[in-house]
Amino acid sequence: MTRDLIISLDAMGGDHAPDIVIEGASIARERVPNLRFLIFGDETRIVPLLTRYPILKDCCEVRHTDKKISADDRPSQALRRGRDSSMGQSIQAVKDGDACAAVLAGNTGAQMALAKFILRTMPGIDRPALAALLPTSRGESVMLDLGANVECDENNLVQFAIMGAAFARTVLGVAKPKTALLNVGVEELKGNDAIKNADKMLREANIPMDYIGFTEGHGLGGGEIDVVVTDGFTGNIALKTAEGTANMIAALLKKALNESTMSKIGTLFASSSLMALKNHLDPNNHNGAVFMGLNGLVIKSHGGASSKGFASAIGVAIDMAENDLAGKISRDLMNFNSTIENEDSSSHDDKVIEMNVKEQS
Amino acid sequence: MTRDLIISLDAMGGDHAPDIVIEGASIARERVPNLRFLIFGDETRIVPLLTRYPILKDCCEVRHTDKKISADDRPSQALRRGRDSSMGQSIQAVKDGDACAAVLAGNTGAQMALAKFILRTMPGIDRPALAALLPTSRGESVMLDLGANVECDENNLVQFAIMGAAFARTVLGVAKPKTALLNVGVEELKGNDAIKNADKMLREANIPMDYIGFTEGHGLGGGEIDVVVTDGFTGNIALKTAEGTANMIAALLKKALNESTMSKIGTLFASSSLMALKNHLDPNNHNGAVFMGLNGLVIKSHGGASSKGFASAIGVAIDMAENDLAGKISRDLMNFNSTIENEDSSSHDDKVIEMNVKEQS
Repeated sequence: MTRDLIISLDAMGGDHAPDIVIEGASIARERVPNLRFLIFGDETRIVPLLTRYPILKDCCEVRHTDKKISADDRPSQALRRGRDSSMGQSIQAVKDGDACAAVLAGNTGAQMALAKFILRTMPGIDRPALAALLPTSRGESVMLDLGANVECDENNLVQFAIMGAAFARTVLGVAKPKTALLNVGVEELKGNDAIKNADKMLREANIPMDYIGFTEGHGLGGGEIDVVVTDGFTGNIALKTAEGTANMIAALLKKALNESTMSKIGTLFASSSLMALKNHLDPNNHNGAVFMGLNGLVIKSHGGASSKGFASAIGVAIDMAENDLAGKISRDLMNFNSTIENEDSSSHDDKVIEMNVKEQS
Repeated sequence: MTRDLIISLDAMGGDHAPDIVIEGASIARERVPNLRFLIFGDETRIVPLLTRYPILKDCCEVRHTDKKISADDRPSQALRRGRDSSMGQSIQAVKDGDACAAVLAGNTGAQMALAKFILRTMPGIDRPALAALLPTSRGESVMLDLGANVECDENNLVQFAIMGAAFARTVLGVAKPKTALLNVGVEELKGNDAIKNADKMLREANIPMDYIGFTEGHGLGGGEIDVVVTDGFTGNIALKTAEGTANMIAALLKKALNESTMSKIGTLFASSSLMALKNHLDPNNHNGAVFMGLNGLVIKSHGGASSKGFASAIGVAIDMAENDLAGKISRDLMNFNSTIENEDSSSHDDKVIEMNVKEQS
């Protein structure tokens, strides 16, 4: 008998809540029979929706709260008065062991603040990072940090690399993911000090990854790299630039293919191939970013995601929960720190990480 | 009678030198009859090539040098022993008034170092920046810095905005270019201190631009913004991410359209529309980045550009030279600093800029 997988949901988050959340949960449940949900939010809105999805209704529990985090709430406001909101309670359910992961849409800053406050960072991790899968010409690759930390030092970057490699092993099924630091050139001299130092640390580290050094922005779509590591400012800009470029080309392509009768006929002939491409690039099929490095799984769905997109984010939560992402990260951190110990490093930061890991293991 | 436009070229720079350089010059000359060239490099390789292009041959002067900068030369090496190289001499020709602009392919770091050393920065500019036109869904927009400065403060960003707006007025013909700072969110609270301070300074500045605040990576391809301002690290990553994404989609599209007989037939019908799109996105049609903020025009061509691409870079040089880019920047800086003076600012940095401008005016 398979064990039930329980996911907590904030029904009130995102641009089209609660409809999209409930519909997305229903799609996810059709795919995974042992899935159950804990749904937090306004029951006067959720319960009527559930009558449309009888199978979903039978495998979920609604916990009512009037309070919700709005899209403009600042992280500080979320921390002050958001812990009993639908978002805060979804995360608390993970902390209490009632759910194995929370899936949340909407206000990213508030999610990050509440998740960090309620779940705390894993031993050995100074700062959590936001990671997601991006489409490439060969398949998908993992990128982090996508915006959790505007400024990062070398220790943050190394920890991101360890977490990203664990993510890739979990989701992409690669034993030693090809991992690179995003930089303005591939030569060792390029970049700022944090990147240069992180490069040196990763070259010497004993982690289950194939560290290949620096990659430039070109490397993002090519699919030669499994894990792209960067600070949250650059990662956020790169992610949105890639999305913006894809949207621009899609808009131009649509316009070009509608330009003449000839091109319209051509589009009809090529339609099934074009739809497959559209599908591969559709952000809803890559929805679901993970707040890595917390003592518990929190998955962020894009605020504007469709129900199909929200179901993808639930799919990421299931993958992470079933494949023990947290365990992989803990073990890799232990190995990494024991390498440093063997080299008799006297760095204070490293020692702090080691101590944290030992205390908890 | 139109005055001759003289452009200096480093014939030995780029992946396919000197062939691409000479062929590109010939293409540019066909378009602009009053164009003349000063070509620096190995005459034993240049002169035989010129025999293929009799019109070009008649309007250029070859100045021989054996020395050249190679792709792996570091900026420091270029400075130590590169001043009499073909690259150094091309830039020196601008300094000496023998040419109105230099167009160089290849080693960007060496170009930047030599250009800055030989030409010096304009009064009021602390650091030069690399700017270029990017394709958007509506036309083109200017982006800077694309990699000249890995770390930037608020004064650098403000100066980049002033220079970028002058670029857009010169090349895009917009009287008040919509200018934005690239950031991880559009709210005033987002981003690092340099960005937040630059935002404040630009809101108060009196410059011929329509400053619209922050834009995210999504804004790059949309075409709603004429000038996107960022530090060189982020700009380089964003530029290359956009290029990488466009290449990825082109590769996927090509694969999709070759997948079946049906899609191949469709491609035939749609071929003229698809070619027009390919043309709009072709980096060779947007080649030619400008080192902004120097006392003289230096244009960087992509090292791997085709001869058509090199001709585009020469086209950018002509646009800049004919439309007095440097004059526009100087006047805008004067206005900007007089605004600050009127506000009786006591910032040391601002005063230094003012003094520099006054000394030279």
